[in-house]
Amino acid sequence: MPKIDLVMSPALLSYYDIVGKVVVVIDIFRASSSIVYGLDNGALEIIPVSTLDECLSYPRDEYLLAAERDGKVMPGFDFGNSPFSYTREKVEGKRIVLTTTNGTHAIELAKTSDKVLIGAFFNLEVLCQKLVELGKDVILLCAGWKNKFNLEDTLFGGAVVKRVRDHFSISGDSAIAAQDLYELYAPNMPILLTKSSHSQRLIHLGIEKDALFCLEMNICKTVPVLEGKSLVVNPS
Amino acid sequence: MPKIDLVMSPALLSYYDIVGKVVVVIDIFRASSSIVYGLDNGALEIIPVSTLDECLSYPRDEYLLAAERDGKVMPGFDFGNSPFSYTREKVEGKRIVLTTTNGTHAIELAKTSDKVLIGAFFNLEVLCQKLVELGKDVILLCAGWKNKFNLEDTLFGGAVVKRVRDHFSISGDSAIAAQDLYELYAPNMPILLTKSSHSQRLIHLGIEKDALFCLEMNICKTVPVLEGKSLVVNPS
Repeated sequence: MPKIDLVMSPALLSYYDIVGKVVVVIDIFRASSSIVYGLDNGALEIIPVSTLDECLSYPRDEYLLAAERDGKVMPGFDFGNSPFSYTREKVEGKRIVLTTTNGTHAIELAKTSDKVLIGAFFNLEVLCQKLVELGKDVILLCAGWKNKFNLEDTLFGGAVVKRVRDHFSISGDSAIAAQDLYELYAPNMPILLTKSSHSQRLIHLGIEKDALFCLEMNICKTVPVLEGKSLVVNPS
Repeated sequence: MPKIDLVMSPALLSYYDIVGKVVVVIDIFRASSSIVYGLDNGALEIIPVSTLDECLSYPRDEYLLAAERDGKVMPGFDFGNSPFSYTREKVEGKRIVLTTTNGTHAIELAKTSDKVLIGAFFNLEVLCQKLVELGKDVILLCAGWKNKFNLEDTLFGGAVVKRVRDHFSISGDSAIAAQDLYELYAPNMPILLTKSSHSQRLIHLGIEKDALFCLEMNICKTVPVLEGKSLVVNPS
């Protein structure tokens, strides 16, 4: 039986062997939610990059350039990582380059694995189906906040563990704790917005509407996969 | 109001500012439990060291030498980190040098803080009183298992947060999650021994009796403090 494990911060990933495994990158508020939403809404590809300079190096006539730092859209870019910037009207048929505080860094770290997928509450059910189909060892990688633990990414990891646990052996205390926490919060997920530190930050920035939206479940049918440097829906 | 925060792994400590703060090192299975128990039972000092060689460099006619790696007593040493090796008969009036897989490393990392204390269920209540008395910012540092998250250290951190929360502002999601987890497990702590990966490891090593004992609450009145290179009860 394949194993499933959860890593609570990108800074802990080096203590796990990811070679040959499937890594699911999770950044609920808001990068992974926006990536899933954007590709589900017809974006052709989303290219995650680490730096603002790298993002700006792509030609504007071919790409939408998206950049977020500390929860804010960076000046000079088309948009940031609010899911409401990734609606069908805005992204269908478009190519997007994206850099964020936490999520794109986690994707970069995961590249030596067999396969990198993107998970969010938006695609929870189809992601879980995909993990079961693949039948390989899974690492759920929480992007966290500047390498610190955050609640929302771990809760999502727990939601995945709960749904796939008949098909995987649970390896490690972090996956157990994540599932425990998810079961505790599941009856009232929006309570997160009054408890989690990152949510407080989002509220302070006036984007709690984004955060509430990111808790919506199964509104997308897409599991983004990293192919080369691009996140796409259907790898060639 | 001072802040309290929880760090789930020593590998994450570098993302926190510990200067001027009180750091509580937590390694429930079993280093911090044995340190509290040993000093409460009259050991004069316990010197945590990082390596086996450093431990062996102390003269045997003056010190008991204790070394644990991967849950086992290392050959050639007087004992490891089982609390049952730290009874009054064995340690009263003795000086001990100790090296372990996780706990002594965490103590080393905490040295740049204002004060390093040792926490375990054995001294939960007196530790919490001490933290409130000190009135400074607190970092609860979980030793974990080889830099990975573990349940028992985080649950203990949650127990501390729950008891002192009227005197501190809770800073960060990890302290919130730890408290949530503690409240979930508190009615039946021994269930840990069937769930946590580290407990499974202890059971495999035949030391589940140690683990169960380490969950006993408030049997000690001692809060070990690091003074220079030694953990002691009453610093000069």
